[in-house]
Amino acid sequence: MSLQLPNYNDIVEAYNRIKNQVKHTPVLTSESINSLLGCNLYFKCENFQKVGAFKFRGASNALMSLADNDCLYGVATHSSGNHAQALALAAKFRGIPAYIVMPKNSPKVKSDAVAGYGGKIIFCEPTLEARERTLNKLVEDTGATFIHPYDNFNVICGQGTAALELLNEVNGLDIVMTPVGGGGLLSGTSTYVKSVSPKSKIIAAEPKNADDAAKSFSEGRLIPSINPNTIADGLLTSLSEMTFQIIKEKTDSILTVQEINIIKAMRIIWERMKIIIEPSSAVTLAAIMENREIFKGQRVGVILSGGNVDLGNLPF
Amino acid sequence: MSLQLPNYNDIVEAYNRIKNQVKHTPVLTSESINSLLGCNLYFKCENFQKVGAFKFRGASNALMSLADNDCLYGVATHSSGNHAQALALAAKFRGIPAYIVMPKNSPKVKSDAVAGYGGKIIFCEPTLEARERTLNKLVEDTGATFIHPYDNFNVICGQGTAALELLNEVNGLDIVMTPVGGGGLLSGTSTYVKSVSPKSKIIAAEPKNADDAAKSFSEGRLIPSINPNTIADGLLTSLSEMTFQIIKEKTDSILTVQEINIIKAMRIIWERMKIIIEPSSAVTLAAIMENREIFKGQRVGVILSGGNVDLGNLPF
Repeated sequence: MSLQLPNYNDIVEAYNRIKNQVKHTPVLTSESINSLLGCNLYFKCENFQKVGAFKFRGASNALMSLADNDCLYGVATHSSGNHAQALALAAKFRGIPAYIVMPKNSPKVKSDAVAGYGGKIIFCEPTLEARERTLNKLVEDTGATFIHPYDNFNVICGQGTAALELLNEVNGLDIVMTPVGGGGLLSGTSTYVKSVSPKSKIIAAEPKNADDAAKSFSEGRLIPSINPNTIADGLLTSLSEMTFQIIKEKTDSILTVQEINIIKAMRIIWERMKIIIEPSSAVTLAAIMENREIFKGQRVGVILSGGNVDLGNLPF
Repeated sequence: MSLQLPNYNDIVEAYNRIKNQVKHTPVLTSESINSLLGCNLYFKCENFQKVGAFKFRGASNALMSLADNDCLYGVATHSSGNHAQALALAAKFRGIPAYIVMPKNSPKVKSDAVAGYGGKIIFCEPTLEARERTLNKLVEDTGATFIHPYDNFNVICGQGTAALELLNEVNGLDIVMTPVGGGGLLSGTSTYVKSVSPKSKIIAAEPKNADDAAKSFSEGRLIPSINPNTIADGLLTSLSEMTFQIIKEKTDSILTVQEINIIKAMRIIWERMKIIIEPSSAVTLAAIMENREIFKGQRVGVILSGGNVDLGNLPF
C-alpha cells in the first residue's frame, strides 16, 4: 500500500490554517557561536512556540483539519512529552476534550503542564503495551479520535510550517537542520525545504544512543530503537512507516552525536544566546561541533525544537 | 555647581552613533505571564545585547564619543560586573586598551569573560578603598581615561537607547520599568521616555536589601547603601550625584522587592519565556507581582537588563 505523503501545497495550506493560532517565532543569530564554529547559523526558535515546542504546530493543524463530526468526542493520544501539552492546548482552542495517556511514573512537572492546558490525564503502567492497551480502551469508551504524535499526515504538515517561516525570513541557506526522534519535524521540514530550495541540504541530528533513524536511513529499512537511553528525552521515539518514507527520500544525511556533546552544545546556547533549549534541541549544534568541516563557511538554518526542561534538574 | 544632564537630543545622537555597533534587541511578550498578572508586558530583551547586558550601549557610546586625543592611552574602570565586559569590548572595537580593576576574589567566570573581550585585568584587594586607590594609580601610570559605570553623561545617554528602540516598536505604554542600581539605565530611560511620551509613568524596581534609591528618592537626598546584600548582584551600587538628580526629577516611583520574589520572578521568566535573565533583571517582574493593583490592565514596557548568570550556581 502506498501512503499519501504531504507536499509543498499541503504545508502552505497548513500554514494558512494555523498561522493565527501559532506563534511566529523569531530567528536569532549569535556572532559568538558563528565565530566559534566558522559558519553562519540561523536559529529558528521553536522553544518560544506555544507550549514551548514546535509540537504545537502539528497538533494545531491536526485539530483544525478535523471535521466537526470527526472530533465530536474529543481527541486522544499517548505521550508524556511535548505532544501531550500541544494536543491539550490545541483541543482547548477547538473546544473539545483531549485525553492523554501517560505512564504513571511521568514527572509531576509534565502531568501538571498537561493538566494546566486542560488535558484529561489517564495514567497507565509504564510499558509500551500498557500505553497502547489503555489508549485503545479509552478510544473505544469515549469515541475520541487518536492523534499520533508524528505518524499523521496533518501533524507532519503542521511541523513543516516552522521551515516555511524560516525560509521566508532567511535566504540562501546551504543547509537546514533538525533533530530527529519520531521524524515528524524532519519530514515536514525536508518536504518544504526540498520544494522551495532544492539545493539546500537537509541534515538531521540524532543521539548516538537512540540512533534508529541513522540506522534505518543507512540500511534502507525501518530499524526501531531498542531501549534507547539519552538525555534528549524528546528523541527516544523511533521513525514510523510514514516519516521513514519521507525521510529516506528527502534527507541528505543523519549525523549521530555523543551525549557529552549534547550537554556541551546545550550549555553553549544557554550561555551565548541567553535562551533556554531542551537537550533534544541541542543535538543539531552538537552535530556541527562534531563535524566542523561539513559546516565550514555554510549558511545553516537550525530549528531549535523546544525549551521544556526541569530547571530543578539540569545537567550542569 | 549644576551638572549638565542629558536630554532627548543627546540620546538620539547616542543612538545614531552606536546603532551599528550595538544589537537591536527584540521585544518579546508572553501570553502566559500576561494572563497570570492581568496586564500586558513588553519585555525589551537586553539580555540578548552584546556582552549579555544593556551596559554595552553605555560603554559603546562613551568610547565612540571620546576624541582621539582623549583616549590615546586607553580607558579604565573598576567593576567586577557587566560594565567591565562592556568597556573591554567597546575598547576592542575602538582599538584601544581597556584596563579593568577587579577585586581579587571576583569569580573566575567574570575575569575570564573580561579577558575574553581583550580587557587587561588588574586585581586589587576586595575593598572600595583598594579599588579606588588601584584605579587612581593605574590612571596616573598609564594615562588611561576613566569611564565610570554610570556617573557619566555619555554612558547614561547610551543606556537610554534601549528605551528609544522600545518606544519605536511599542506604542501607548502606560508604564516603563527598569531595575535601579547605580541608576544609569533608569536615568537614560526616564529622560527619553518623559520627552517622547510624558504620560507614561516611570517605575523603577530595587531589592529591599539594597534600597538606597528608594530611600534617596523618598527623602530627597542621596543616601548610599551600607553593606547591601542581595542576589541581584548588578544592583549593589548606589546612586551618584548625576543619576540621582535625573531620577528625582523624571521617575514616578521606586518599588522595593523581597529576595524570594526576585528568585520567583526570575524562574517565571525562564520557564514561561524560555529566556535567561540574571537576578538583577527580575526585580521589575517581582515588583509587578508584589503590586498587582498598580499594573492591572496596563501596558507596561519592561527593560530586561541582562542575562549573565553562572549556570553552575543557580538559585533553583
